[in-house]
Formats: sequence, C-alpha cells, structure tokens
Amino acid sequence: MTLAELEQLTATLPPNVNSDETVALLRAAAAAPPRNDEDILLHQLFPDLTEDQFANLLSIRDDFRREIRSIVLNPSASRDRLAKLRAEMAHEHIDGFIVPLNDEFHGEAAPAAAERLKWLTGFTGSAGVAAVLKEKAAIFVDGRYTLQVRNEVDTDLFQPCHVSEEPMSAWLAENMSSGDVLAVDPWLHTESAMSSLRKSANDAGIELKSIKENLIDKAWQDQPPRPLALVQPHPEEFTGESSASKRSRIAGSLAARQTDAVVHTLPDVIAWLLNIRGADLPCTPFALGFAITHQDGRVELFMEERKFAANLREHLGNMVEVKAPAEFESALAALKNKTVQIDPAVTSQYIVDRLTEAGAKITRADDPCLLPKATKNSVEIEGSRRAHIRDGAAVAKFLHWLSENGPSGTLDELSAEAKLRSFRESGENFRDLSFNTISGSGPNGAIVHYRASEASNRPLGPGSLYLVDSGAQYLDGTTDITRTVAIGEPSEEMRHRFTLVLKGHIALATAVFPKGTTGSQLDTLARAPLWSAGLDYDHGTGHGVGSYLSVHEGPQRISKMPSTVALAPGMILSNEPGYYKTGAYGIRIENLVTVREVIPPQGSERVIYGFETLTFAPIDKTLVEKSLMSDTEIAWLNGYHFAVREKLSPLLKGSALDWLQQATSPL
Amino acid sequence: MTLAELEQLTATLPPNVNSDETVALLRAAAAAPPRNDEDILLHQLFPDLTEDQFANLLSIRDDFRREIRSIVLNPSASRDRLAKLRAEMAHEHIDGFIVPLNDEFHGEAAPAAAERLKWLTGFTGSAGVAAVLKEKAAIFVDGRYTLQVRNEVDTDLFQPCHVSEEPMSAWLAENMSSGDVLAVDPWLHTESAMSSLRKSANDAGIELKSIKENLIDKAWQDQPPRPLALVQPHPEEFTGESSASKRSRIAGSLAARQTDAVVHTLPDVIAWLLNIRGADLPCTPFALGFAITHQDGRVELFMEERKFAANLREHLGNMVEVKAPAEFESALAALKNKTVQIDPAVTSQYIVDRLTEAGAKITRADDPCLLPKATKNSVEIEGSRRAHIRDGAAVAKFLHWLSENGPSGTLDELSAEAKLRSFRESGENFRDLSFNTISGSGPNGAIVHYRASEASNRPLGPGSLYLVDSGAQYLDGTTDITRTVAIGEPSEEMRHRFTLVLKGHIALATAVFPKGTTGSQLDTLARAPLWSAGLDYDHGTGHGVGSYLSVHEGPQRISKMPSTVALAPGMILSNEPGYYKTGAYGIRIENLVTVREVIPPQGSERVIYGFETLTFAPIDKTLVEKSLMSDTEIAWLNGYHFAVREKLSPLLKGSALDWLQQATSPL
Repeated sequence: MTLAELEQLTATLPPNVNSDETVALLRAAAAAPPRNDEDILLHQLFPDLTEDQFANLLSIRDDFRREIRSIVLNPSASRDRLAKLRAEMAHEHIDGFIVPLNDEFHGEAAPAAAERLKWLTGFTGSAGVAAVLKEKAAIFVDGRYTLQVRNEVDTDLFQPCHVSEEPMSAWLAENMSSGDVLAVDPWLHTESAMSSLRKSANDAGIELKSIKENLIDKAWQDQPPRPLALVQPHPEEFTGESSASKRSRIAGSLAARQTDAVVHTLPDVIAWLLNIRGADLPCTPFALGFAITHQDGRVELFMEERKFAANLREHLGNMVEVKAPAEFESALAALKNKTVQIDPAVTSQYIVDRLTEAGAKITRADDPCLLPKATKNSVEIEGSRRAHIRDGAAVAKFLHWLSENGPSGTLDELSAEAKLRSFRESGENFRDLSFNTISGSGPNGAIVHYRASEASNRPLGPGSLYLVDSGAQYLDGTTDITRTVAIGEPSEEMRHRFTLVLKGHIALATAVFPKGTTGSQLDTLARAPLWSAGLDYDHGTGHGVGSYLSVHEGPQRISKMPSTVALAPGMILSNEPGYYKTGAYGIRIENLVTVREVIPPQGSERVIYGFETLTFAPIDKTLVEKSLMSDTEIAWLNGYHFAVREKLSPLLKGSALDWLQQATSPL
Repeated sequence: MTLAELEQLTATLPPNVNSDETVALLRAAAAAPPRNDEDILLHQLFPDLTEDQFANLLSIRDDFRREIRSIVLNPSASRDRLAKLRAEMAHEHIDGFIVPLNDEFHGEAAPAAAERLKWLTGFTGSAGVAAVLKEKAAIFVDGRYTLQVRNEVDTDLFQPCHVSEEPMSAWLAENMSSGDVLAVDPWLHTESAMSSLRKSANDAGIELKSIKENLIDKAWQDQPPRPLALVQPHPEEFTGESSASKRSRIAGSLAARQTDAVVHTLPDVIAWLLNIRGADLPCTPFALGFAITHQDGRVELFMEERKFAANLREHLGNMVEVKAPAEFESALAALKNKTVQIDPAVTSQYIVDRLTEAGAKITRADDPCLLPKATKNSVEIEGSRRAHIRDGAAVAKFLHWLSENGPSGTLDELSAEAKLRSFRESGENFRDLSFNTISGSGPNGAIVHYRASEASNRPLGPGSLYLVDSGAQYLDGTTDITRTVAIGEPSEEMRHRFTLVLKGHIALATAVFPKGTTGSQLDTLARAPLWSAGLDYDHGTGHGVGSYLSVHEGPQRISKMPSTVALAPGMILSNEPGYYKTGAYGIRIENLVTVREVIPPQGSERVIYGFETLTFAPIDKTLVEKSLMSDTEIAWLNGYHFAVREKLSPLLKGSALDWLQQATSPL
C-alpha cells in the first residue's frame, strides 16, 4: 500500500477515528479469508461511517489482502529471507533452527502470519518442515511432494529430502557437530513431536534449545497480523445443545477423573464447547484461540474481544471469562499444583513447559470434547440432512449444466469449479466452501489432492472422465461430495472401474456391524471389489466430518490404518472409495454417512449399527456396468436414486428437473 | 516311588550302571510328556540292558510320571505350600512375591518344574498370576477364568481378582506400605512386563527387588527336574532349507543392521533355525533352551547335550557350539560392548540385566527368525499338504464312525476324543496331538476353550451339536481342524447359524487382497454374514501355525485387534469363524489356509494374494441351509467337497469310503 493511498483513507474518515488504529484493524481484517458475511465486523467496528467512507474502507482492506498474499508467497525473495534468518541465528548464537509448516494450533491450515515455511522457502504443500543451519539448509517433504518441492523451492538454498528416506534427524546428526545448539519455537512443536526431536538431538550430542521469540518473526519485517474476523454465537437451533449443558458435561467428566482442569488447544473443540463460530481461516468456521475448562464448570477463553459480534458476550454468559490471548500464560501459571489434562498429540510444548513450571500434575488423554463433538445430536443430524438436500440441489443443477454444456468441449476445470460454487452460494445458510474444490479433468482427476490453477487447467474433453470433489459450510451442516462424470462416451475400462468403485461404496453404505466396531474393521468392505480385479486406491476410505466445523475431524475414520475408536451413533463420516489411473483418469464416489442404530434383525444378540447416507445427488448411470452388479446392489442404486429424486425435485425446475428425472430413473 | 521299588530297579541293572544317576535320568525323562518315540533316548542312555531290564526301567519312569503329576496338582496342599513360601519370604526379609504362570521362555506351556502357580494355588487355567504378601495373597485371572478360579483355588488363602477390574498394581498399592519390598524372579518377567511392574511399584512407593533364586523353588522340596527328552535333527526333506542356509540368512540380516549378535529366547525359533526338534513339552515338538547367533554366522546353543540323538552333533556342524545351560550367563557377559538385539516382548529381564551389566548396546526388535519361520518354503507347504491329507483321512474316518454310532446315544465327549486320537495315531509321521482336543457336546461346545474331563463329560445326545477342535503334529506338518456335527436332527436355528458361519468361512477362504494387507483387514469378511443377523463371536478369526512346530505362532494373525504384519506367501493361518449360544451349543468351522500369490486378473495393477485351503474333511451338509447361500458360495462348497473326495478316497475303504461319497456329494 502506498503512502498516498493511506493518506486518502485517513482523509475520508471522521475526525474521531484514529487512523493508525484503523490501518491496523484493516490489515488484521485482511489477514482473514474473504467470506460473504465478513463486512459485519467492520460495520461494528466503524459504526458511524457514511456509505462512501465504508466503501473506501473495504477497498483499502482488499488492497491489504492482495498485499499480504504477495508478501507470503514470493519465492524470489528466499535467498534474502534466508540470509535475514541466519543473521538472527548468529545474533542468538544458534547453529540450527527448525521451521515447521504448522502454527501453534497444529491444524490443517494456518493464517498468513504463521505461514513461515512458505515465506522462507516458497513451498506450498500441506506437509513439510525445514531445518536451517549456518551454511546449509534442507526441506523435508513426503512422497506426495517430492516433485512439487523441486518446482517451488530454490534447491541451491534448500536441499530437498524425502522425509522417511532421508529423515531430518539423520540429516541433523550428519550436518551438525556435537555441542551445537539447535533452536526450536516451543509453540510450533507438540509435546509428542518434541520428545522424539529431543531423543534425536540427544543421540547426536546436539543441544536442543527452546527460544522465546520465533526467529522468522524477527526476520520477517512485514509479517501480517493475526486475522481479525467476526466471532458469532452459533444458535441452539443448529447445535441442539446449549453451551452451558456441554460445559457441565465436560466439567462432570473432569470431576469423574479427579482432574481440576483441561487445556483446550483445538479451535474446533472450543467452537463446539462454547457454541461459537468464527472466520479466521478459509473453509473452516472457527476462531483461533485457547481455552481452559475448570472442574467447577468455569471456562477461560483466550481471544480478542474486539472480534466478538455484539451479542456474543451475553451468549457466553457468566461462567465464561473472556481474556486477552496475552493472559493465557498467566492462566497456565495459575494452575499451580492442579491436576491438568492435556492432549499430547495437539498441545504445544510451550504450554506443557508452563504447566510444568507451575508445578501442575499433567495427565495426558484425548481432549474430552472430541467424542461428544464427533457424536452429533439429533438436531445436528437433522440440520445436516437439510443442508445436504440444499447442497445436493446445487450439485444436481451443476450436473445438469454439465450435461448440457460438457459435450461442446468449451468447459474447463476452473470454469466448472466456479459454476459449481455459484450454484452453492445461492443456497440458504451458505457461508463458505468447506475445502478447496478438486476439479480434475482426465489425468488431473488421478491426482488425489489436485487443485486446478491457471497453469494446470484442462478442458473437459469428450471421452474423458471429470472428477469433482467439493463441499460447503452451511450454518446447519458441513458437506463433502465427490461425483465422477463421463464427458461424452466413456470407455469400457472406465465403466468397469467405476462399477467396482460403486460396488465398494454400496458395500460400505449398507454395512451393519456390532457396537464396538472401528472404522478400520470396515475399510476392507469398500476395497474388496477392486481387490478382486487386482486394483486398489492409496488413500483412506472415510474421514470424520464436523457439524458446521472442520470437514476433516477425528477421532473416527474408515481406513486400513489401525484405529481403536469405535464408531458410535451420530458420527458423520465420508464414504469415498476411488480408483486412479495415473496419466489417464480418476474415479471417486463420495457420500457422507452417519452412524445409527439399526432395527435389530430377528434373533439378534448384539446392538447393531449401520449407516444412513446423508448426501443426495445422482451417480452417473452411464458409467455403471449393470452386468457386474448383484441384484441387491442394483436395488440399492435404484433406491438411492429414488430418494435423490424425491428430496431434490422440490428445489429444481424446468430442464434441470427433467434432467433429474432421467438421471435418477431405475437402472 | 517307594524305597522297595527303587531297590528293585537297582537290583536289575548291570553293575556298571550308577543307580543314583539312573534315578535322576528317569525322573527327568518322566518330567517330559509321553510320546510315541520317547524310548529312543532311554535306549541311547542305557544301551546295554536286556529287554527285561529295559522294560523295568520304563515302568519305573512311568511311576515317576504319575508321581510328578500328583505332586504338581494337589490343591489340598495349598495352605502348607503357602506357609512354606512365606517362611522363605520372611527369611529373605521380603514383604511380597509375585508368582506368574509362565516360565522363563514365556510360551503357552511350561514343564512340570515350572508350574509354580499351579503348585502353589491349584489353578489350572492358561493365564494368571498370584501375589503373595505376609498376611494376604491374591490371584488375578481374566474373564474366562473367574468361575474356574473359585472352583480350583482356596479363596480363604487367595483372593480371586479379575485382572482388569481389580488389577494387580492397584491391589499391591492398596495392600502394601510405602517402603515395603516386593520381590520378583527376573527370569519370569519379560522386559516389557518388568517396566510396567516397575512403574506401578514406583507409583506406590514400593521397592521392587530382583532375587537370585526363585522362592517357590526353595520352598518346593520335591520339585520335578527339568524335562529330559530326545532332541533330533529335523531332516531337510521336511524343512526345505538347511540350517546353514538359515543361519547365514540371519547372520546377514544382523550385518545389515550393524548388530553383532541376537539372543534367541523362543524355543520354536531355535528349533527352526537349527532344524532340530525336541519333546520337552506336550503337543509342541521343541526342546527348551537359549541360543545366540553372531554376525559371523556362529551360533551358541545352550542345551543339555545328553538329550541329543546320536546324529545331532554332526547335524549341527562346526558353526554351532553346544554349551551347557549354566554357561548361558557367561556367554551373555562375553557380549561386552557388543550391539546385541533382543525381543523385549519375550526376553526375560534377567537376560537384559546381564547384557546391561556387560555394557552391551541393546537394540530391541522382533526376533529376526520370526518372519522367515512364518513364511514357509515350498517344501514345508508341500509337507503340510501331505500331512493334511492324512489328517483329513483320520478325521473322515472319525466322522464316519460318528455317523454310525452317534445316533445310538451311547457316545460321549471323552470316548469320541479317544477314538479320534486313535485314527490319527495310525497315520504316517504322526508324533503327537498339536493341542488338547476340544470335544464339546451341546452346551459344552459353547465354551470356547473347553476341555472334557470325567466331571464335565457329556453324552452326544440326539438333536444336539457336537463341536470337535483337534490337530496333530506330523513330521511333515502341524494340523488344526474344527468340525461341527449334527447328532440326529438339527433345529432350524442351528442350521441358520451354521450357514452364517460357513458363509464367513467361505468369504475368508476366497478373499483376494493386495500385497501389504494385514490379517486385521480381512477379519471382517468372516464376520459380516453373522453381523447381518445381529450375531458375532468373541475370538479371533485366525492364528498362525508352525511347520511341525507350535500350533499357535506369530507374528501373523486374522483378528479385529490391529496388526501391522502384512500377510505374505507361505504363511499358514487358521480360518475359524464360529457362533456360540451359551448353555445351548457351539459352532465353529476351521480349516488351515496358506497365503499364496494368485494369478492376476486381467488388468491387475497390484500383486494380489489369496489363500489355498490346506485342510480336507467333509463339512456337515445337514447343517447347511442352501437358500441362504449364494451361487458362488454353493459352488465353493461343492468344489471343496469334490477336492475332499478326490484327496481322501485313496486312504479310505468300505463303508467309510461309501460315507465319504455321500458326505461330499454336491449340495
């Protein structure tokens, strides 16, 4: 932003508005992702502006947003940034520094201010870590990113390493000397991660040092501020249970385990517990912050109060004390001699250190909100059903549009993705997408975590498959659906593979199983039809999904990775087997399902659960080879399409409705 | 044994035979289980006796054997034995002593000398541990044994506790005082077990002390000797690989991991590695002992050489040094400063302590022989196929006999079990049963680990189900088979449940899966048909099986318990789903299978494995409800029965052959 622009801003504002503070607020607002309701907060912070003044404010904010984007990702600046980091290291007499990708919340995404690895190296993948020494540096990524890292990162500066073939511990042992000091920011490493790091350092004779201020933050002069986005109550009509009731349940569970307090470090847990929703990160409606629940039911919430919607303070009530983020440390110190529960897999070493210093007795377990949050109540399930019907209608409109425009060959991945978004945005209660849409044509569909860009964008050509994996955040539920569509005439092989994937999808959708069964016990049902043909897919079959929260949530999952978490009624999961032919096409069929108790068969001796499918949108029949399907599989598909027609018809009209009739007619 | 009998023995022997030594040898031979080839060793030890003298010797040995049995299990002696143990504790100033069920090899069975828990308490179950304090004592057992322990153990002396509801650690903390000394025999606790014991003791302020001589051994004046049974070479015609080749493979794997030596503590591993077989324990043909493999391929074997068959020393060759068991300790001390691998799950703390004292660098991993032993070579698989045909013929003769004599109502569990044994014993290469036969009529069939006794023996009544789970040790393979047979007319419910179990059995038998798949991924296939009816069974679906070795072997298994061991070609496993109606009947259908690569389907992209069924014996068709079976399931059963007929017909004749024709005719 130029000085002239800033002066222009100041000039338009009323005299009682402090311009420095305004600039800071606008930069912080710009550090949050755009959302359709984001202006509410600025209206609240600047209540007395004229329409023109407000419009000016918004335009400045959008300028800041562009600026922040260009600051974070600027690969040509890597050499300069690395030099600045090394200067800070020299100043602190440090021989090595570790730069993880995550922030202090250890979630899937982090705000711009915390994108330190991206700022330093230019790497944009979803998992990675860099180690910087005085003369050398390396970046460690997994198999998904070994090609990408070489495209994005200057390999003269950072040696690219495969995280399991050339692990960081071995690289550090080889390139550091005994007695060298390796520094870490204890906010960015969980207790679990830190203990394995400590072991590696010990083995190599390296001194591991926790530093107070992150060296990147010192070196990064124009580091964006923390995001400032509205935090609102999430009404009981959507949550189905008051925060007071949830807090009393959690406090009760602490009492039962003779625990004085639990430190919550997961933003989605805090959102669930307090029935609040925020917008600090894209696609996930929570606000970043920490909280402590005490055995007496009192909750301390560490969050900037200026982000709060006008009615939030009252919503939280007397038992929730709102404190500034800076007060978190003294609140931890105040847990002196208390028995305090943390979740070592998601809690920063910094927090553990403060508790240890305070003489707290630390107990380690999953956050006590995890299972209650995962097992949705009937109001949440009902909300999810409603959200899924709206979402299904948007997807059906899109599929109809695709059926009309696809054969012309004029569509491409980006235009299709935008069209799908526009259908969703017009739906009631829509707030955001729930993740970046995967819009993959032909060979791009075979890239499991593909994201279309101007560079990669492919047309939807005849004879190809188009895979679209997308979802949205509605106030009443979070959706996630994948459909694979034949553009023009599919090959026999495509139909064969699609039908095998569909058989796996149906096997899981119709599974019944006794109470106590885990997702890993069910995973094979979705794979067996592919296995019979010598095929498989290299990803999990299902992940947990939140209720207007994260589209990926634990602890439940359906995967061949061993799990000890039993599936329980109310859990929402995805059912998404697939098949990928590298360089050719990808197939995935994904619906969300919820676990529920089923009516016991005659003579049943166990409590038996099954799934209810929540997602309703046509599955492309032109890709189904009927001769490979059993009678019960055909009956499932016809029954599913009957339900799709029944639920979506009221929301469609004209040619879209006609198309739906045909797309859902019996096989 | 009376003095008169001993004098009679001495009187018959030639003058050059030392009678004290003879008595000791005969007692040690008596401490081994009876086997059909056991006299070879006595012939070898006493080569110059007349036929009458030798017969006399055998009769004395058999007297000793009866005596040992009556010594170990004498519940009325518990009070006196406990007092003697407490006297030893007082003498050593010890406040508590732990008495585990296992011996220093931590296997499923232990010789009489090591049955310390049984001697002390009278408990005969397969899992348990006692804790003895100055005034109190308790015995901890799992859910299978909570009733049995009260029948067998004097609860005035030993408080019976459920091992997970009233764990030993809590009981010790409650009943011992801070500063008290709790003693353990470090030979009887693995390193893993010891570290959790140490943690519990620390938490309770109890001092944990390893003692040199087991206090039970001090208190037990007539403790039997260690078993003395023949150790023989196991010829390459059965093993398919020379011991030299195996040793060189294992030494190579040590070199690859920069490990100097590995301590083998599992007797079946040593038997596999050296191609030797013994008879120290019932049903399992190995000799108890330890071994150390060095990186240069040298092996130290710690075993009494007088047990060796005449040709064993030559078989072992120059690279195997045979040492007395007493030399094991100094051999561990000689590993000073070496890198030594142990398996913490099966290695006694005593061994770890000696290595630590010696300054060895200990690395921890599964024994390197485990996987090579589990993946049988083609000679072993071919041997198993042959053994299974003989075993199947014995089972078919038994089933034929049952079909003729069952309806009369004159048979019972014990007579049936004996008859089945007699059919097996007449087969070529038969050496022993592979486990105690489970012969369960009606409600006894619902007891998963049932063993018929005079007290529990039930007739095989009309309208009941009879479940028989049995197996044998042949030189060329180990078998394990369960058949469930209708005596007279089965009920509709029995046929329904049997058919569901059969469907699960078929689903697993016909499964195909990619390389890398674990047994826990396949377990659900065997359960799904039962789940659909609201039913299940509370045991694993399959265990690994050795090659003329343990009928239960790791690391492979098929179970809902998470496993990280991929199934690999040559592994042998059981396929044994079941259904149990408490108080009514039990159903189990068990065949052994081996993993093999299957011919890839057209278009296959993965290496695909499947199972070959090894067991051949008719499955009772009167229990199959055809209308519940799919066409492919019926085809599997008919194909299986066709193979049964083809393989067993040459070994049967007369009415048995006629019966087989009918029992294997298509459904």
